Amino acid sequence: MKMIKLVSMSLIASSCVFGASSLAQKAKTNGLTAIPEDAKALSKLIDPKGTITEEKVALGKQLYFEPRLSKSGLISCNTCHNLGMGGADGVSAAVGHNWTANPHHLNSPTVYNAVFAQVQFWDGRSPDLEDQAQGPMQAMPEMAAAPSMVEARVNSMPEYVESFKKAYGSDVKVDFKTITATIGIYERTLVTPSRYDDFLNGKNDALSDAEKEGLDTFIDKGCATCHNGVGLGGGMQPFPLIGKYKYADVGDFKGDKNGMVKVPTLREVTQTAPYFHNGAIWSLAEAVQEMGRTQLGVEISDEDTNKIITFLKALEGRKPVIEYPQLPKSTLDTPKPDMN
Amino acid sequence: MKMIKLVSMSLIASSCVFGASSLAQKAKTNGLTAIPEDAKALSKLIDPKGTITEEKVALGKQLYFEPRLSKSGLISCNTCHNLGMGGADGVSAAVGHNWTANPHHLNSPTVYNAVFAQVQFWDGRSPDLEDQAQGPMQAMPEMAAAPSMVEARVNSMPEYVESFKKAYGSDVKVDFKTITATIGIYERTLVTPSRYDDFLNGKNDALSDAEKEGLDTFIDKGCATCHNGVGLGGGMQPFPLIGKYKYADVGDFKGDKNGMVKVPTLREVTQTAPYFHNGAIWSLAEAVQEMGRTQLGVEISDEDTNKIITFLKALEGRKPVIEYPQLPKSTLDTPKPDMN
Repeated sequence: MKMIKLVSMSLIASSCVFGASSLAQKAKTNGLTAIPEDAKALSKLIDPKGTITEEKVALGKQLYFEPRLSKSGLISCNTCHNLGMGGADGVSAAVGHNWTANPHHLNSPTVYNAVFAQVQFWDGRSPDLEDQAQGPMQAMPEMAAAPSMVEARVNSMPEYVESFKKAYGSDVKVDFKTITATIGIYERTLVTPSRYDDFLNGKNDALSDAEKEGLDTFIDKGCATCHNGVGLGGGMQPFPLIGKYKYADVGDFKGDKNGMVKVPTLREVTQTAPYFHNGAIWSLAEAVQEMGRTQLGVEISDEDTNKIITFLKALEGRKPVIEYPQLPKSTLDTPKPDMN
Repeated sequence: MKMIKLVSMSLIASSCVFGASSLAQKAKTNGLTAIPEDAKALSKLIDPKGTITEEKVALGKQLYFEPRLSKSGLISCNTCHNLGMGGADGVSAAVGHNWTANPHHLNSPTVYNAVFAQVQFWDGRSPDLEDQAQGPMQAMPEMAAAPSMVEARVNSMPEYVESFKKAYGSDVKVDFKTITATIGIYERTLVTPSRYDDFLNGKNDALSDAEKEGLDTFIDKGCATCHNGVGLGGGMQPFPLIGKYKYADVGDFKGDKNGMVKVPTLREVTQTAPYFHNGAIWSLAEAVQEMGRTQLGVEISDEDTNKIITFLKALEGRKPVIEYPQLPKSTLDTPKPDMN
């Protein structure tokens, strides 16, 4: 009898504090969406045009790790979007060719779950990952490679040409657009479903009570106003909306022509410090509170900040297992590395 | 009857041209040794002190791919010894921190099979991989990290400290020496047995007739005088021995105090251009012929060069499958990246 009473009280408590399954409903009502468990639904989400094939993904992975796509031969996509480091580089502003820092002091965002963003780059100027991949490869302070050099390097290696033929058919033109698009296709597969997704997908005990309380606080404070959708971010918002960003003087980035800035995904956020477009904040707690001040006009208490961070930790997902790719041999026709 | 005759002729032909199994004997007589097939024998060879354990290798792999062991947080062992590119970087001279080129214009040798070398570094100043790993991490033009910074970075991440405890016991001191030694232990496992080894281990048909002819030419021309042992290299020799190295003016490296230079391994040589201590030669054919001139005092004809290269291709080995490691999260205590 006593036991029954306890169980029943515990149910009531749980339902009062977190609304149990109604919390999942609340999350959905506030625009939070899970990575689908169902393979078909996931495939439709990450591959709406049906471009992903096993061959393209395998080739795209090689190209993602391929430093010879940079002028120097030393910098790959993975240098700044390191798949072992949460898909980012852990430095404030990207440093690339010739040790040149990003002139606008822009932080490298994570590539994990980038497929869920509506737009790419901090100013949202690129519509998708295939298009985005063209940017850093050419940018002087990043990989600094002319498209013609990228094409010449790849076409000089018969193993690559063969792989492109297998992936796209024997009449494929191995040009800059196809090379970068193949990298984008690989990046589409870099998603990290977490216990948060399991919870939204109906597994009520996938989150602890503390994590549920954190999610509830996250919603109540208004974080989900911008950090929503499957990516918990990925759209464009004015920044800062209210008041002045504490580190506004680091870099000269002003967003797009309307002052809009891409909302970063919160997936894997515990692994992707430093934060913000200029990587000026290293503490996740400070980042949460600065967001409260500049976007929501609220002071988020230390207690609520801790609750929110407890939830953010539950966004640490299951990373794809990546077999480090063996890359084709250079040939005498391969344009030489150029350090200048 | 006709068939028997053919078979018998074929046996005679094979035995005349290459000496069949006697070629393997000839190779052994000339100091060429296989990577043992037998796991125990291999273990004894790569791990004479019995330091390798699964835990140390897993941790060493993380550290090998860990850019936060460099001052900038951007350069790992794998940057210059890329396991997807034959264990090297494909550039003439290493470029590291602050985009500084190696001041002596020294080429990064492959880490694959480096365990078979008697000494490490081009001037042979280091006795083993555990000791070697201390060098590039501190060198200004490479990873440029002070030992104290390396220690502070690693000790700031509880996941690393936990892994060191698992690998070495709970009273382990996670110091520079232990960190670098763990990388060396991982590197001991990076061996690539090839069809050449299968041949020496008794599988007579592991090499084609052309490859056997190449091996025979390799021995007859005298290449095995220096490129011998399990590593087909790895000892010290004077360079150049006869005449003048064509690219002697690239860099100022003069070898050790006696003018001795480490003989590079020929394993994976088809993937590790450019060649020589200063990476001045990109063509394997030119490298073979330059070696003939400067070390053996012979002109190696184009025909013989091709034969030798046919053999060298048979040294392309079976690389270990490497799961790209997930690295621990930085904490607020982790010393920040420093680009200067």
